[in-house]
Amino acid sequence: MQLAILGMGRMGLNMAHRLCDFGHKVICWNRSSKEEEVSKFGGVFVSSIAEIAGHLDKRRVFIIMLPAGPAVDAAINEITLFAEAGDIIIDGGNSNYKHTMERAAMVTKKGFSFMDCGTSGGVWGYKNGYCLMVGGDKKDFEYCEPAFRDLAPPDGYMHTGAAGSGHYSKMIHNGIEYGMLAAYGEGFELLKNSEFGFDLHKLSKLWNNGSVVRSWLLELLEDALSKNPGLDGIKGFVEDSGEGRWTVLDAIEKSVPAPVITLSLLSRFVSRQDESFSAKIIAALRNEFGGHSIKKDRVS
Amino acid sequence: MQLAILGMGRMGLNMAHRLCDFGHKVICWNRSSKEEEVSKFGGVFVSSIAEIAGHLDKRRVFIIMLPAGPAVDAAINEITLFAEAGDIIIDGGNSNYKHTMERAAMVTKKGFSFMDCGTSGGVWGYKNGYCLMVGGDKKDFEYCEPAFRDLAPPDGYMHTGAAGSGHYSKMIHNGIEYGMLAAYGEGFELLKNSEFGFDLHKLSKLWNNGSVVRSWLLELLEDALSKNPGLDGIKGFVEDSGEGRWTVLDAIEKSVPAPVITLSLLSRFVSRQDESFSAKIIAALRNEFGGHSIKKDRVS
Repeated sequence: MQLAILGMGRMGLNMAHRLCDFGHKVICWNRSSKEEEVSKFGGVFVSSIAEIAGHLDKRRVFIIMLPAGPAVDAAINEITLFAEAGDIIIDGGNSNYKHTMERAAMVTKKGFSFMDCGTSGGVWGYKNGYCLMVGGDKKDFEYCEPAFRDLAPPDGYMHTGAAGSGHYSKMIHNGIEYGMLAAYGEGFELLKNSEFGFDLHKLSKLWNNGSVVRSWLLELLEDALSKNPGLDGIKGFVEDSGEGRWTVLDAIEKSVPAPVITLSLLSRFVSRQDESFSAKIIAALRNEFGGHSIKKDRVS
Repeated sequence: MQLAILGMGRMGLNMAHRLCDFGHKVICWNRSSKEEEVSKFGGVFVSSIAEIAGHLDKRRVFIIMLPAGPAVDAAINEITLFAEAGDIIIDGGNSNYKHTMERAAMVTKKGFSFMDCGTSGGVWGYKNGYCLMVGGDKKDFEYCEPAFRDLAPPDGYMHTGAAGSGHYSKMIHNGIEYGMLAAYGEGFELLKNSEFGFDLHKLSKLWNNGSVVRSWLLELLEDALSKNPGLDGIKGFVEDSGEGRWTVLDAIEKSVPAPVITLSLLSRFVSRQDESFSAKIIAALRNEFGGHSIKKDRVS
């Protein structure tokens, strides 16, 4: 089929590449020029969103692969300026599912279709295929299915329900990932601190063969440890990109206990601190009430 | 090769079966008779541990597959009554690694060899092979390698280091499993409580195809949800069998932060409570200081 992808970041560029490999016609837009990269795999680069219209037959399909937030709204607004009834806008990024529901209402009110597509697979998606969670109208889903089928590995795409359900399920997917990452991280820190001098790379490789904790994340860890057994040069500083926070906020909103995922998120915050004010307070109080010694800090 | 397995529970019986399938001679002992089960796959059942001696050439190899604790000590003591210099005792159960180090010291002092074998794979091990983490002397490991190789899937066994390291790494493996299980559990509870009415089985199946959270545990969940989408009839009551506790105690002993694994363990304790006294206290105090209403409980 033919479609446009807006946003040629890591994800968008690789998805366009994969779709071109499968013989689809892909119109690619990015704020800065990616003409060279796109032409390499046979995509058509356009430098303005409005230009897309002339390159696609109706019903046009626009997949937005932009960072969650205002960039998505700006792209949707620009598309709706020239789109025609029935055209389909898909947000394939990591938008908050509530924004998605609002955008879906707004876009469909104008006579266009809207779908949200939670996209998992990271930098490996080009090779292995992306796992796609697609929310929106079932008929729109079926119209775009040739693209979803080729973006995904076998059985790797699904119509998850109404608009918002794609991003919601991707959000929970990422929340689960937070907990899994924390579990591996803590376990390997214990192994590293043990008296046995384990070869962590060999152990990660072993566990990927027949153990209960084998997983794709552990395969990635095996790979990382094979290249850098001590993880030298990597600071233990963990960013987050929103979906863990939203998972925790969702748990709070719905009064569903999700303590482990919540703590996994908070542990990332701890990882970013050079110093903990909370720990300073505890140290000060222990000194006050018990005369416990305090470590002097440099005064800047 | 030829060897004995002591303990014909879920694990021991299946391991004996698998070893017999690979042409090994396996002498099987169990406290209660398992003669019928064992004879089905060509094992030799003996009703006393002392009988094993006459069935094996030297160096004899004894794999103990008994519940952690006194049963293991009893079996080791009985073996050492008739064992001869060089015979090898392997604890393949989930013993505490500190007990293992003590037992190894005691057994080797008497002139025998001792190895610990952390064994992962559960009820699937017979078919898929067991992931084996083996601690002890490297030469003893090599002597027993024909059995380890056939028990394990390809690349699924490893000499982890000195005696104790096999059980230590299995302990951490299980601690990681606690965190992973909690992450999946909490994520799927959020999905179930969402406004989108997700098909949880389909979603678990989807995530096993190309998503970042794909894993063997998620495959098991996919299987469980396919048979019972609402998990009807399964009480949300989670036991633990020791290794999670030992992981947390190890973290405490070594002052290594492992908050997420720790909370995963504590969440299991919460799952077993019909009522929380801690929650009663909070409810009572909120009533005292703020006049917040309390729910009446039946007085037994």
